[in-house]
Amino acid sequence: MTSPSQTFDFDQAVALQELSIGNYSGRTHAAWLNMVGPFGGITAAVVLQAVMQHPERLGNPVSLTVNFCAGVAEGAFEIVTKPARTNRSTQHWTIELTQASQVVITATAVTALRRSTFSSVEVQMPALAIASSLPRAQPPALPWTHRYDMRAIKGHLPVVWDGSESDTLTQMWVRDVQERNIDFVSLTAIADSFFPRVYLRRKTFVPIGTVSMTVYFHTDAADLNALGSGFVLGQATAQCFFNGFFDQSAQLWSEAGTLLATTHQVVYFKE
Amino acid sequence: MTSPSQTFDFDQAVALQELSIGNYSGRTHAAWLNMVGPFGGITAAVVLQAVMQHPERLGNPVSLTVNFCAGVAEGAFEIVTKPARTNRSTQHWTIELTQASQVVITATAVTALRRSTFSSVEVQMPALAIASSLPRAQPPALPWTHRYDMRAIKGHLPVVWDGSESDTLTQMWVRDVQERNIDFVSLTAIADSFFPRVYLRRKTFVPIGTVSMTVYFHTDAADLNALGSGFVLGQATAQCFFNGFFDQSAQLWSEAGTLLATTHQVVYFKE
Repeated sequence: MTSPSQTFDFDQAVALQELSIGNYSGRTHAAWLNMVGPFGGITAAVVLQAVMQHPERLGNPVSLTVNFCAGVAEGAFEIVTKPARTNRSTQHWTIELTQASQVVITATAVTALRRSTFSSVEVQMPALAIASSLPRAQPPALPWTHRYDMRAIKGHLPVVWDGSESDTLTQMWVRDVQERNIDFVSLTAIADSFFPRVYLRRKTFVPIGTVSMTVYFHTDAADLNALGSGFVLGQATAQCFFNGFFDQSAQLWSEAGTLLATTHQVVYFKE
Repeated sequence: MTSPSQTFDFDQAVALQELSIGNYSGRTHAAWLNMVGPFGGITAAVVLQAVMQHPERLGNPVSLTVNFCAGVAEGAFEIVTKPARTNRSTQHWTIELTQASQVVITATAVTALRRSTFSSVEVQMPALAIASSLPRAQPPALPWTHRYDMRAIKGHLPVVWDGSESDTLTQMWVRDVQERNIDFVSLTAIADSFFPRVYLRRKTFVPIGTVSMTVYFHTDAADLNALGSGFVLGQATAQCFFNGFFDQSAQLWSEAGTLLATTHQVVYFKE
């Protein structure tokens, strides 16, 4: 059984009790609720946490895909995680989160022992105002948004919901309000912290739900650790809205300009 | 048992024999081999094929993630696919491909009954020379590349492998040489038809292997069907190369300018 730090709400929300190797129980956390059920990012984070605390884990995350099969209900859940294949330097994981014996989340992950190789970032970090020069955005009335200090440069939630169309580019600095040190698990939650692109595109409120989300990690544990609790620059945009689903792609950068992760998701929307 | 058309090499390569509901056997196809084992795109395609021919499938693909846990060996394989969760309009799938009882591929997919909604494409299709005005690129000595008619506008394989660095943007028209009508399964294979970005970035040959690949579909069966065997415009680029892995994102457009799919992958590379 693990005993994660109980200091931060985030650690409480992703705390898992080991029932047996690869089998965990957890509970949703009131501070991380969304409109209905928990914030998707905290669910993705707890899925990765199940991999991170598996005793057979090899290396650190390279890739994570989380499929939201149904709404997570408030309360208890179980996670089964297993290494489907372990190679010399990479390991493939399958994860399933259930509630009342029903599958709620399916997920896959890749962890790897990285080696020092040619490294190069092709995408440019936008030159933007630094976090400390910007005010904290007023969070809406959703518990999870109060867990983040978001400082929007462009494309925060619409001020006027008038149904006019616009682009969906968001650029914002974000960090945990409780200034917890960034790790792979909290970075995963931040990867889902962008408001649904359809709100920006249409300035109309419609029911939405992420269907599948992928995170590619471009950093290692030592580099992440060196960031402490600093801000992350997030840049997100949509490519396509088509008959009930849209996609969303984002990049997460450190204040020093390191590309930490790229992330993609497909989201259901009504009407 | 299904009896797919045997006219096209592609159909032969993705042909699956039903052993029982959700259990299939297949074989790799000589025409679709890569440097070692089959082309990743044909493997991703056969994984989706297992979902497509499952008798309980609801709707058409919205999302597919395929994890390449180990190299697929030439010869026989088995696929187990199951609906992990079926909702009113969406369905979540888990898929596993094995060889000699070892897990070689894990995958998840989402299918959905789409409804007509607000639809809008935010990303712009680049204005490029039309396919018929361009010569077919000379394919390298890899069997699968001979299955495609690729017409590069920018960023085909380097002509001179001199180790100089450049950007990784590829723009190319592509279609099946055998002019088979496009469907979700063949579109999946095309989503992996871009040469590894690291070759373009470094103009140096290094061993590579896709680790995880995701496709988001932005089209329905009727629209796809109307395309016949036309060319698809593919545009791909990398964002980051870091310690043994790089990412790659691409868009696939119809000749008429419809965004058919967006796709992302993370790829292992050596050195």
